[in-house]
Amino acid sequence: MASPVLKQGFFVVLVLTLSVFQMVSASDPDILTDFVVPQNVTPDGNFFTFTGLRAVLPLDAPTAFKLTKVSQAEFPALDGQSVSIAVLEYSALSLNPLHTHPRASELLFLIHGSLEVGLVDTTNKLFTQTLQAGDMFIFPKGLVHYQYNANATDYAVAISAFGSANAGTVSLPTTLFSTNINSRILAKSFKTTVPTIHTLKRGLKPPMA
Amino acid sequence: MASPVLKQGFFVVLVLTLSVFQMVSASDPDILTDFVVPQNVTPDGNFFTFTGLRAVLPLDAPTAFKLTKVSQAEFPALDGQSVSIAVLEYSALSLNPLHTHPRASELLFLIHGSLEVGLVDTTNKLFTQTLQAGDMFIFPKGLVHYQYNANATDYAVAISAFGSANAGTVSLPTTLFSTNINSRILAKSFKTTVPTIHTLKRGLKPPMA
Amino acid sequence: MASPVLKQGFFVVLVLTLSVFQMVSASDPDILTDFVVPQNVTPDGNFFTFTGLRAVLPLDAPTAFKLTKVSQAEFPALDGQSVSIAVLEYSALSLNPLHTHPRASELLFLIHGSLEVGLVDTTNKLFTQTLQAGDMFIFPKGLVHYQYNANATDYAVAISAFGSANAGTVSLPTTLFSTNINSRILAKSFKTTVPTIHTLKRGLKPPMA
Amino acid sequence: MASPVLKQGFFVVLVLTLSVFQMVSASDPDILTDFVVPQNVTPDGNFFTFTGLRAVLPLDAPTAFKLTKVSQAEFPALDGQSVSIAVLEYSALSLNPLHTHPRASELLFLIHGSLEVGLVDTTNKLFTQTLQAGDMFIFPKGLVHYQYNANATDYAVAISAFGSANAGTVSLPTTLFSTNINSRILAKSFKTTVPTIHTLKRGLKPPMA
Amino acid sequence: MASPVLKQGFFVVLVLTLSVFQMVSASDPDILTDFVVPQNVTPDGNFFTFTGLRAVLPLDAPTAFKLTKVSQAEFPALDGQSVSIAVLEYSALSLNPLHTHPRASELLFLIHGSLEVGLVDTTNKLFTQTLQAGDMFIFPKGLVHYQYNANATDYAVAISAFGSANAGTVSLPTTLFSTNINSRILAKSFKTTVPTIHTLKRGLKPPMA
Amino acid sequence: MASPVLKQGFFVVLVLTLSVFQMVSASDPDILTDFVVPQNVTPDGNFFTFTGLRAVLPLDAPTAFKLTKVSQAEFPALDGQSVSIAVLEYSALSLNPLHTHPRASELLFLIHGSLEVGLVDTTNKLFTQTLQAGDMFIFPKGLVHYQYNANATDYAVAISAFGSANAGTVSLPTTLFSTNINSRILAKSFKTTVPTIHTLKRGLKPPMA
Repeated sequence: MASPVLKQGFFVVLVLTLSVFQMVSASDPDILTDFVVPQNVTPDGNFFTFTGLRAVLPLDAPTAFKLTKVSQAEFPALDGQSVSIAVLEYSALSLNPLHTHPRASELLFLIHGSLEVGLVDTTNKLFTQTLQAGDMFIFPKGLVHYQYNANATDYAVAISAFGSANAGTVSLPTTLFSTNINSRILAKSFKTTVPTIHTLKRGLKPPMA
Repeated sequence: MASPVLKQGFFVVLVLTLSVFQMVSASDPDILTDFVVPQNVTPDGNFFTFTGLRAVLPLDAPTAFKLTKVSQAEFPALDGQSVSIAVLEYSALSLNPLHTHPRASELLFLIHGSLEVGLVDTTNKLFTQTLQAGDMFIFPKGLVHYQYNANATDYAVAISAFGSANAGTVSLPTTLFSTNINSRILAKSFKTTVPTIHTLKRGLKPPMA
Repeated sequence: MASPVLKQGFFVVLVLTLSVFQMVSASDPDILTDFVVPQNVTPDGNFFTFTGLRAVLPLDAPTAFKLTKVSQAEFPALDGQSVSIAVLEYSALSLNPLHTHPRASELLFLIHGSLEVGLVDTTNKLFTQTLQAGDMFIFPKGLVHYQYNANATDYAVAISAFGSANAGTVSLPTTLFSTNINSRILAKSFKTTVPTIHTLKRGLKPPMA
Repeated sequence: MASPVLKQGFFVVLVLTLSVFQMVSASDPDILTDFVVPQNVTPDGNFFTFTGLRAVLPLDAPTAFKLTKVSQAEFPALDGQSVSIAVLEYSALSLNPLHTHPRASELLFLIHGSLEVGLVDTTNKLFTQTLQAGDMFIFPKGLVHYQYNANATDYAVAISAFGSANAGTVSLPTTLFSTNINSRILAKSFKTTVPTIHTLKRGLKPPMA
Repeated sequence: MASPVLKQGFFVVLVLTLSVFQMVSASDPDILTDFVVPQNVTPDGNFFTFTGLRAVLPLDAPTAFKLTKVSQAEFPALDGQSVSIAVLEYSALSLNPLHTHPRASELLFLIHGSLEVGLVDTTNKLFTQTLQAGDMFIFPKGLVHYQYNANATDYAVAISAFGSANAGTVSLPTTLFSTNINSRILAKSFKTTVPTIHTLKRGLKPPMA
Repeated sequence: MASPVLKQGFFVVLVLTLSVFQMVSASDPDILTDFVVPQNVTPDGNFFTFTGLRAVLPLDAPTAFKLTKVSQAEFPALDGQSVSIAVLEYSALSLNPLHTHPRASELLFLIHGSLEVGLVDTTNKLFTQTLQAGDMFIFPKGLVHYQYNANATDYAVAISAFGSANAGTVSLPTTLFSTNINSRILAKSFKTTVPTIHTLKRGLKPPMA
């Protein structure tokens, strides 16, 4: 943030705007205004509209599992509105791997195909279900879950609603095995050997590594 | 609710269960358990699944505007999860009339067709937009809004997410002109004549009246 | 808002102060400090005092319905305190037209005269009551309501409390018929004709138009 | 609730009703219904009305300081509405002694007379003010405060709004010196002698003791 | 709701009590009473006291990692108080394996020994630290974390505070590999082979299996 | 933040940083990010660590009552995490005088010695208890309480958890008798004489006065 010679105020104002935005995003709960407008924005119909998802349509024939989320980061007008949406497209036999959302429950609505879903509660009880098109499933806040399109020939599409403008996602494979957590810590946690952990880490290495 | 002769305790327990359920539904905010289970229910995968919307698919060719909502009343597992979904199907030139949701913002995702939407904030500023398929629009909590399919030949379909398990709906035409509010109060409110109010009341009389 | 050469820091600080204030006002819930002080203010007894209502006394003989509200906009010390007050004075036969408050319930305390009140819940049930001086009535958050002084010879005075520093008001006549919502949308919503809508719009045109 | 033969059932039903009521009252925050109705009550206009304050009018000439509060205990329809009201009448030279409200801020509106108010924040800073009729003063949640009518010849009347249906009151004189807290604990707390504490305890003994 | 002959009233009351308790525990947020008392309990000093941890003292020389938590389940008076505590004792080289808390952040205070801690945020950034006795570390809500006593000769003791009466724990090794999640789902999630998953499952099989 | 040539810019950035910090601290509830980072800070393991309490160990032999709190002011990473901790050390016969916490309940865990605790609820009921090492006691939000080490020969140590990053403390002796509240107001509140109040004020005068 250093600025050797501050010739132009523009940079300063920019810093200010960003900081303000960060502030706002620190608070999810009820707002005291109809909506929250970022600095220097005069709201019009476009402000309340998000057009970045047009390319996601039509919702058919994905080539892999594909997640497109629209939260406060993508759509600033969601600030203070406590809601967001994600579109989930599953190619045949594709998986949305095990993960949690730390800040909201997820209500998934399957609009095409079928889907195997699983959920584990804090008493370590596993709940599974095979959803048909038209079904909804609720994944409570913070609990581990997955979705799997077990159909070998048809894709699946779901739309998920979250009760927060930024539900957050903790991807467990990535969090556990792609973040340089010490392999002995992992081996001890999972009661396995360091070589087994190394096997897992190799499989989950990010593509660019 | 009186029961002169009650030979079996079963009825008592049933009443009890209902009352408890009413209690639970009186509280939206963060819960202290993974999820809220109604009395005498042992949760399994079905508990977290709502199948009542299968008939809504495929989402095409409605003959009128049709709203199908899945909130806590329809899907009890939503209790404490702060999220719900509605499916909105618009036949050509159909309208979702002016209304508000007292307990949550609505994030509408248009998945087919086009849609004219309007929103009025508490400073009486009107915001309108014409959405294309793939667009989202946020209607903040408690503000008056509508959606209109202005296309004379194509239907439209949207899926809306709400950040509450029971957002509630105040339909303004019904609330104002089908609830026996005194016609003089209405005429005075809307700065018009009682005959004009009577005209409006006649148009909005519920079908069974 | 760019400033090619930043000659004076004053403008920058001003922008900053405003932005900060906007931030604070974006959050109603529990605060982490005793109270919230705007930038550059050193709180003293005056900070916690609002004197702008002295002229409203004595509370007698209004010539029309008159609403005086004291919310966060009028009294900045209310920020974070989750409470505000409004004074309502009703001349004989005057009306507080149909409206909702999107962010708080209203507890009305009638201290002079009598008052007819009405409330419609989300099941479209109308509740009416005639209040005597000394009575209170609760209007739940987001529900449509009105108050009418049906007494042809005496005025009425009420003091209303709200559980938010900025409850907000959606005036239904103004929102519906003074905001340029397309007349065909309105006619379709209210199941009436466009000429009837035009009649209503003419009656509710703002004075300056 | 009629019951021709009901040997023990009445007691059981009573327990049930009370327990339900206790449940509901354990939760202040946003509700998921328009309002909360106690068991076995069918809400009508009376449900939303509190008539117990009629006798408090007209608000003039109290013979001592008199506090009349309308919270959830007195007015069950306030459950879930996050608001309550108190009427405060001050005879000449009367005092509302030092106290706190643990669950809500208090917004006091002085409608007759004058009033000296004081407030201490958590940094031990004292804020005082002399209010005129028409003034408001905000006492933030949990902070120690008092009101005193210093006028020797005129009474004062205020109406206070709270952002909770049950703000609660901790009266400091009573809490400290009428509750049998060990005198040595008190002497040590207030860095004084046990006889001084006994003097204070004698003064504050409840009338019936 | 009447019950003329109620032979089994005791059972009914019991059911009632349990259901009420379940209700209360469904709600963490601000309460409208000083505290929440279970049915049929008259609170005294014992009600506010938890004595079940006496055996945990003195805090020295554990033979393995040992977690003792005091949440609402163990200490009912915590209901509505939004706080709980856990005692963590680490033998030399012992580990508190990878886990999350879905309902609260954890503030860990190390009072003996040293401790390696790790935390992964939702952007998959790993934060590690070696704590000395006297240090605190904050693990934000819902994020994956662990603690490891890397000292081969000395034990460690920590006391953790949570901002919820029931923070919940998702143990990742158990959740992932001891709950019968389909091995092919796991293999696909972790981009490894089913035999590797079987290896992991064998290691984490519960002792009784 | 280095800036070789930045004549007024430094002050501007400083103001900005402070204002941002004030903003953030105005909001306790759920955050929309994993954690809240002050401006110009890049979080690493140190950011989540508080080392300022090392000197408090070992927890033995205090010479007087000593309170060491770690809240958001001392440990900025607590912002938005809704939790804080205090260490309480009691020399023999020392007292933590009567006080309240306006923004959170306190869960006290006694790890050495014994402790007499007292609590008064809003119905003026006193609850007392003598804690042994290993016991916990919950002091609900906003209620008056104290702790006293009645043991003449041994010290006591407790660790307290709070469900807020800034619970706040209202010390009653200081608030009442060291803040220049008018002595006649105090005498009238406590139903005693002005000379008795003066005696109390003299005893509680801050050391530096």
